[in-house]
Amino acid sequence: MSDRPSTAILDRLSAIVGPSGLVTGEELRSRPAAWTRPAEPCAALALVRPRDTEETSRVMTACAEASVTIVPRGGATGLVDGILCAPDQITLSTERMTTIEPADPLAMTMVAGSGATIEAVQDAARNAGLFFPLDLGARGSATVGGTISTNAGGLRVLRYGMMRDIVLGLEAVLADGTVVSSMRPLIKNNTGLDLKQLFLGTEGTLGIVTRAVLRLRPEPVGYATALVGCPGVDEGARLLRAAQAAFQGRVSSFEGLWPDFYRLMTKPGRATPPLKPDYAFYAIIEMECLPEETDRFVDVLDRLMGEGTVLDAALASSEDQRQAMWRIRDRVENMNADGLVRAFDVSVPLDRMDGYVRGALARLNAIPDCRAVVYGHIGDNNLHWNTTRLDAAGNAAIDAAIYEPLAELKGSVSAEHGIGLEKRGKLPLSRSPAELATMRLVKRALDPDNRLNPGKIF
Amino acid sequence: MSDRPSTAILDRLSAIVGPSGLVTGEELRSRPAAWTRPAEPCAALALVRPRDTEETSRVMTACAEASVTIVPRGGATGLVDGILCAPDQITLSTERMTTIEPADPLAMTMVAGSGATIEAVQDAARNAGLFFPLDLGARGSATVGGTISTNAGGLRVLRYGMMRDIVLGLEAVLADGTVVSSMRPLIKNNTGLDLKQLFLGTEGTLGIVTRAVLRLRPEPVGYATALVGCPGVDEGARLLRAAQAAFQGRVSSFEGLWPDFYRLMTKPGRATPPLKPDYAFYAIIEMECLPEETDRFVDVLDRLMGEGTVLDAALASSEDQRQAMWRIRDRVENMNADGLVRAFDVSVPLDRMDGYVRGALARLNAIPDCRAVVYGHIGDNNLHWNTTRLDAAGNAAIDAAIYEPLAELKGSVSAEHGIGLEKRGKLPLSRSPAELATMRLVKRALDPDNRLNPGKIF
Ligand SMILES: Cc1cc2nc3c(=O)[nH]c(=O)nc-3n(C[C@H](O)[C@H](O)[C@H](O)COP(=O)(O)OP(=O)(O)OC[C@H]3O[C@@H](n4cnc5c(N)ncnc54)[C@H](O)[C@@H]3O)c2cc1C
Ligand SMILES: Cc1cc2nc3c(=O)[nH]c(=O)nc-3n(C[C@H](O)[C@H](O)[C@H](O)COP(=O)(O)OP(=O)(O)OC[C@H]3O[C@@H](n4cnc5c(N)ncnc54)[C@H](O)[C@@H]3O)c2cc1C
Repeated sequence: MSDRPSTAILDRLSAIVGPSGLVTGEELRSRPAAWTRPAEPCAALALVRPRDTEETSRVMTACAEASVTIVPRGGATGLVDGILCAPDQITLSTERMTTIEPADPLAMTMVAGSGATIEAVQDAARNAGLFFPLDLGARGSATVGGTISTNAGGLRVLRYGMMRDIVLGLEAVLADGTVVSSMRPLIKNNTGLDLKQLFLGTEGTLGIVTRAVLRLRPEPVGYATALVGCPGVDEGARLLRAAQAAFQGRVSSFEGLWPDFYRLMTKPGRATPPLKPDYAFYAIIEMECLPEETDRFVDVLDRLMGEGTVLDAALASSEDQRQAMWRIRDRVENMNADGLVRAFDVSVPLDRMDGYVRGALARLNAIPDCRAVVYGHIGDNNLHWNTTRLDAAGNAAIDAAIYEPLAELKGSVSAEHGIGLEKRGKLPLSRSPAELATMRLVKRALDPDNRLNPGKIF
Repeated sequence: MSDRPSTAILDRLSAIVGPSGLVTGEELRSRPAAWTRPAEPCAALALVRPRDTEETSRVMTACAEASVTIVPRGGATGLVDGILCAPDQITLSTERMTTIEPADPLAMTMVAGSGATIEAVQDAARNAGLFFPLDLGARGSATVGGTISTNAGGLRVLRYGMMRDIVLGLEAVLADGTVVSSMRPLIKNNTGLDLKQLFLGTEGTLGIVTRAVLRLRPEPVGYATALVGCPGVDEGARLLRAAQAAFQGRVSSFEGLWPDFYRLMTKPGRATPPLKPDYAFYAIIEMECLPEETDRFVDVLDRLMGEGTVLDAALASSEDQRQAMWRIRDRVENMNADGLVRAFDVSVPLDRMDGYVRGALARLNAIPDCRAVVYGHIGDNNLHWNTTRLDAAGNAAIDAAIYEPLAELKGSVSAEHGIGLEKRGKLPLSRSPAELATMRLVKRALDPDNRLNPGKIF
């Protein structure tokens, strides 16, 4: 793009959003290109921050007329380079669309601007005596719009679902500036295509989300939490199913920890291991329940120990003990210290997980100098790997060991982080040519000139 | 269409599906045009019944080449004329795609052909010690494909969601014969647009669903059921929220019964009224819980009675009593006997329901000779009205009283039944021009020649 049109579009955008709504120069370069590239400055021509849906629409129309492409930007915590910009692109930040309307206790819904953070939404729900269930480590920065656009999952998917299950309605601006407002606070609304689904998980390629209606829940009444050791992941899965049957949908977390991960996280000085280090599989299981229901949980554990499905179990008997147990799972920075710096996020059906992990571990262990640990929200099919970083050939061998088996096992190359730029090359392992062609049909229908986040996903 | 091309396409279809796969003449005319038109024969040129996805694809290609349009047909229990055919159309029935693969107890998923009935799927799940949660009165005929295409709701939405929340993956054939197979049995799979959403609730206008992966649940452990009388629907809603907080997501039904409906259903000879007939609002509330948890439910009721939120309550103390309570809600044929033959299915946010019902009742009562009762799954925003049938002007006045206020209240002209042909005229009350235009963009992208269920929804 030549200099002249750049200036023209910047003037026009500034007229729409006001001078303080347009960020360029040093101020723009001080923002990182992406979470995974903290030292790399944002390369965009400018960052524009509309105050509301209407300004967003006018920005989109102006960019369409100037043939400029747009990269939506929320809290910039995404892990797949979805907000990376080229120097001729405008990045549209939702940071001024942070209004949260008061929650309604009867309807149990709340309207939030797409720039509101997940933490702000959680706080607002709590202040109304209610509960916003989505939670993730990035809660202080990740936004409503970003979590919609990546269909974020996080820590409570097993019980409450992903962002897709929490959003009742939303408002989005299409590439040509059209405002599509579907803000009905309804659970049931069978009136044709459910338009919000076009924007959930599509990483800003089909529209800019400006507001959403969120479904709230009652606050949890309490927790029962245990760390268990099992003969293998299949036995762990049987424990999960038994607990789900006994607690009827109130199992809120089921985190699988394979032994190398468990041992790494419970090294001297890190955490006191509640169980012996030599079981083939560990799990942290947490139920939302009243204190008096803990006995029933102990009954389930006793029965499964009698059968040999569970080999040992430690129950958290105080909030402190519960937090200590969770630290074994959550202190993921321990892995960096051990050089396990490459992180992977994949899905595998639970009944095929044992074979997948064994096969992938065998392949990984055969790669010279490769170390790898595996853990994850296995109750939602979600596995995380962390591996050493090798040279290009070594990294490619690691990728192959982790990703390639997924196609045949009906797994997914991305459980919750999305595709962005980073996983585009892996997408054909998860999606058939017909699926990709169908996605492209929809992309072309909504954004025929490929102005919204071009090059991401596809 | 002239006679010659008809014969040509029929020969071609017969070659694909075999002679027994093509139904014409008397056998075809013996099938009803729709559930709501039992005496009207199906008007289609022919009914074609492919055995699998591949035959479905070949049928679609043949029809595309012959410029014939297709009406998908499942169990024919839909209530909005979605399967109605013109004489030059082919109706494609899924009745030979009924295979149900064994459920996997660890993965808790099941693969079913789109022609399998909901009852067959429920039975297969039960035989595997699991539970398929979708349930509706039409279970013996309604199919997996039909409930996907209408995003059916039914009796347990409050706890388990609609069909959208139960389908993990599906396979569909597009208008040009393309097979889009997204059959991964995954809860988490963030790899671009979630393609199954294109087919959920779009009533066969975007593709023919041939198979689906369904998510199963543990079997319910028991029930606590009560009929309560309240000063109004707002108090009823407060009871619902209190019960949801105490039972953490295990309230499985919350049915609102306004007094005229309650009195009609408990007339002498119909059902014994468990409570006095003069409360302003009744509700049947049911929890999935263990017998020993009933005390906690009684505590909730006692507390709310102390506050005046609940005025009286009858708890079912046996399965017989529970069934008797449900008959007060379910014997909807009683309304036909009383001439309340026009049925409506709408959505209203719970916090606006009181005002909506009062306003609509006032308008309905002002229409000469009009009688109306109202009830519904109000926990999911869903209201049903039944009214008398009047002349054209009277029916239009009834429609206006029920539908018109919905636009402003952010309600919906269809909670669960869909749009079909019947509610097309009402759709603009629920969807803005921009929403309708966006739906049309997607329709045109997937079915540019408007071959799949043309005229339905739009
Ligand atoms: C410490 C940490 C923990 C994390 N834990 C989890 C986890 O448990 N589960 C999980 O799923 N993810 C997790 N993530 C990833 C990340 O937080 C999520 O992807 C989150 O949804 C991104 O939100 P954001 O507002 O930061 O979006 P961004 O990173 O700004 O953007 C993400 C994508 O969405 C697009 N986008 C953003 N806003 C909009 C909008 N309003 N309209 C249209 N498109 C938009 C962007 O273009 C980009 O493609 C974690 C990240 C970190 C750093
Ligand atoms: C007694 C009774 C009770 C009911 N209760 C409820 C209820 O509680 N909740 C509720 O939501 N509904 C209810 N309904 C409505 C109806 O049962 C549902 O709409 C059901 O989902 C229709 O399924 P079906 O197989 O009969 O589909 P059909 O009636 O055959 O078709 C419905 C629509 O889907 C399309 N379609 C069917 N199969 C496919 C396919 N494989 N691929 C693409 N398109 C297809 C058709 O073209 C049509 O537009 C009830 C109906 C009756 C008669």
